[in-house]
Amino acid sequence: MNLDNIASPTLILDKNKCLNNIRLMAEKAKKHHLIFRPHFKTHQSRTIGKWFKQFGVNKITVSSLKMAEYFANDDWKDITIAFPVNIREIDTINSLAEEIQLNLTIENIESVKFLNDELKFEVGFFIKIDTGYRRTGISFDIFLTIDKILKAASASSKLKFKGFLSHTGNTYNAKSVDEIRDIHNDALNKLSFLRNQYIEKYPDLIMSIGDTPSCSIIDSFPEIDEIRPGNFVFYDLMQNQLGSCNFDQIATIMVCPVVAKHSERNEIVIHGGGVHFSKEFIEINESKVFGKLVHLTSNGWQEANEDYYLIKLSQEHGILKISDDLFNEINIGELVGIIPVHSCLTANLMKEYLSIDGEQLDYIL
Amino acid sequence: MNLDNIASPTLILDKNKCLNNIRLMAEKAKKHHLIFRPHFKTHQSRTIGKWFKQFGVNKITVSSLKMAEYFANDDWKDITIAFPVNIREIDTINSLAEEIQLNLTIENIESVKFLNDELKFEVGFFIKIDTGYRRTGISFDIFLTIDKILKAASASSKLKFKGFLSHTGNTYNAKSVDEIRDIHNDALNKLSFLRNQYIEKYPDLIMSIGDTPSCSIIDSFPEIDEIRPGNFVFYDLMQNQLGSCNFDQIATIMVCPVVAKHSERNEIVIHGGGVHFSKEFIEINESKVFGKLVHLTSNGWQEANEDYYLIKLSQEHGILKISDDLFNEINIGELVGIIPVHSCLTANLMKEYLSIDGEQLDYIL
Repeated sequence: MNLDNIASPTLILDKNKCLNNIRLMAEKAKKHHLIFRPHFKTHQSRTIGKWFKQFGVNKITVSSLKMAEYFANDDWKDITIAFPVNIREIDTINSLAEEIQLNLTIENIESVKFLNDELKFEVGFFIKIDTGYRRTGISFDIFLTIDKILKAASASSKLKFKGFLSHTGNTYNAKSVDEIRDIHNDALNKLSFLRNQYIEKYPDLIMSIGDTPSCSIIDSFPEIDEIRPGNFVFYDLMQNQLGSCNFDQIATIMVCPVVAKHSERNEIVIHGGGVHFSKEFIEINESKVFGKLVHLTSNGWQEANEDYYLIKLSQEHGILKISDDLFNEINIGELVGIIPVHSCLTANLMKEYLSIDGEQLDYIL
Repeated sequence: MNLDNIASPTLILDKNKCLNNIRLMAEKAKKHHLIFRPHFKTHQSRTIGKWFKQFGVNKITVSSLKMAEYFANDDWKDITIAFPVNIREIDTINSLAEEIQLNLTIENIESVKFLNDELKFEVGFFIKIDTGYRRTGISFDIFLTIDKILKAASASSKLKFKGFLSHTGNTYNAKSVDEIRDIHNDALNKLSFLRNQYIEKYPDLIMSIGDTPSCSIIDSFPEIDEIRPGNFVFYDLMQNQLGSCNFDQIATIMVCPVVAKHSERNEIVIHGGGVHFSKEFIEINESKVFGKLVHLTSNGWQEANEDYYLIKLSQEHGILKISDDLFNEINIGELVGIIPVHSCLTANLMKEYLSIDGEQLDYIL
């Protein structure tokens, strides 16, 4: 890996790891006869998007109209926006719906009424279901609200019911793989209960689930038709801590210049702060962690011999805490490699990838 | 304020509040005979930068070479980079130093040696001093290290010593205005001790301090020559909590569409997440807060009657917790206004401002 020309914080991508992550998830989907509709909010890159096509992917998920437009312009023809429909964006919805199979996410009657009046072209819609994350969605057992939405939508010639969509984001709070398994199984039970209520009337309904921890760890998807994981394309330190991936599966690191050293507290100051990594953190031994040091190698990086963390971030500064031995090996002006805590947010800040073999990859602007 | 055309999360700027913030700080600097060298990392906008010129500002601070280039290209001729010099960027340093008065920040001998060899044009330099923040800098009382740097730099015909620069960022951890005052006074005492050691040999040396809380709250700057606050241009919820500003001085809000409502828990879901606000938070009553609801008015916004907070953020979602009464007043598809916790990071994510009178203002890309 030639880093000689890197002068400022840079997001590096290991294409092979990334392709391997895509391949494994595509194989899992195939094995379980699931539609694989990956969430593209993590990479937001046309180039990386194209890599999915070799694994047979032709349906994708995004979380904003802006992303939907970006990928529709790159010839993606079947896009679900897994975010409660923002009716203020009706003009963009209509122009996209004219061109592609657009699927919206609905969770309230107000949006249905608005769409009934304003949609000019056919769109699919999923009803957002809450299985316990309590962020968005209708609780899986409130049939009354679901029925109201279905009834109101049936008055429209443009709104086509596709199925139920949930995101079991509470797996991100799990303390163990067993707990992720429990949360996933609980969600499956709730979705099964919901499916039984509606499958006769809607025999083609799609049960769609999403989160990367479940999709990575679990190998059982009864009565599920579609998965929409996103973060798995890169993984990150948070996913590694959750048990979703091995350290070697993490496909991106930040490379940052060393600008100062403080021997009295074994701290190294890097150019790399909140505007590069994001302020997302995990806790390890009750301390905030914003990233983890890796060992840079000739063809990428590998896990360091010991655990060293990025312990503080301000706007442009990052503080790495390391041991005596390593302290003396890292010099002012050198580069260090750091696994980000949350690759989605880091990629969104960096807006560009450099592959290990020196290729620059785009990010939506 | 005409918000009809706003369909997605938008950063709104009240130009009058912003100009007033600049005016007050410029007047304070003048009153105390201080060089006013505002930090432009907060706004990173050519247009907003120009507003400072009417208050006599012609020297600025930035925290990266990228920002220095951006503002140098807009005719700023005297720029201090208040970040430990990143020697990997020597080519940019040289090209900027050829065009403008560039001042670097130095805190180690390795950087001096490198610059001695590689600088092609004259640059000024400040020595970074730590008065207790313990992020970067040489402790104010370690004359041995300071002397080594000065001696090494004196061997160069290109490196011109300008003075000592500190950032009392520990004021951000203060629990009261009195505590900010104590931290500031402690820093002043330390800087005075340092100044006394060097003023005879360097009678023109500049003592430069930076943080917005001190510069906003304190009215005493003995033996200080220059102030470099940045955030005061907008202020934000964090500064308001610290006591640096009144609520009415905060010059930016985010405006976000309401996409879902959950009456069972009095939560409103907005389009506006970590990629818009940043994941920076403050704690109020031991709960994380990512922003505060304001009341939108015909010519901007005002403080809401009660305190309602943005309590959760994921990538694109934000969750507002509100009262029963207000819950019924806010409808799907409407916009809400929210004061961000940290305006520097929010502006960096949004990369564009919309002024209250509908003008679009640039941000460095």
